[in-house]
Amino acid sequence: MLVIVTYDVSTESKEGRRRLRRVAKTCERMGQRVQKSVFECQLDETQFEALERDLLEEINLAEDNLRFYRLTEPYQMKIKQYGTFRSIDFAGALVV
Amino acid sequence: MLVIVTYDVSTESKEGRRRLRRVAKTCERMGQRVQKSVFECQLDETQFEALERDLLEEINLAEDNLRFYRLTEPYQMKIKQYGTFRSIDFAGALVV
Repeated sequence: MLVIVTYDVSTESKEGRRRLRRVAKTCERMGQRVQKSVFECQLDETQFEALERDLLEEINLAEDNLRFYRLTEPYQMKIKQYGTFRSIDFAGALVV
Repeated sequence: MLVIVTYDVSTESKEGRRRLRRVAKTCERMGQRVQKSVFECQLDETQFEALERDLLEEINLAEDNLRFYRLTEPYQMKIKQYGTFRSIDFAGALVV
């Protein structure tokens, strides 16, 4: 399945900026960065659970926000993008 | 359909910060803000085209990035979220 991960991490404190780096690093291991805080990840159920667990260990629920948009095949989703960053087409079907 | 709009707007210049405000304002007219630069919009085809056109007028393609994740019914998508911001369930089916 394709999982879109988006996050807002509060960066007012040093601790928050540290969380932000760790959240990004965790996502980088599992998917493709398409914006500063948006990742597209092609995952199976086990990988998704691992990613979710890892991210929940990093974020502060009182200050941050984390969202998963999770799709199962057949993908009903279409992706359109404009601007500077070109997503790497790592799964053959992500970029329209 | 449900459209997830995400954007990165370069805020290094005054002009960029102005673009960021205008992009957010445009999205606010059409949907629900769920993160700083993530909106969920329930739109028909005409509304989607209007939103896309309006946003393309605001962003700078050389500096910013704009993505649309577009779904048609039946929604194969599931949304999971954690943390501070609770999305308003404005369409009855957005929040799992």
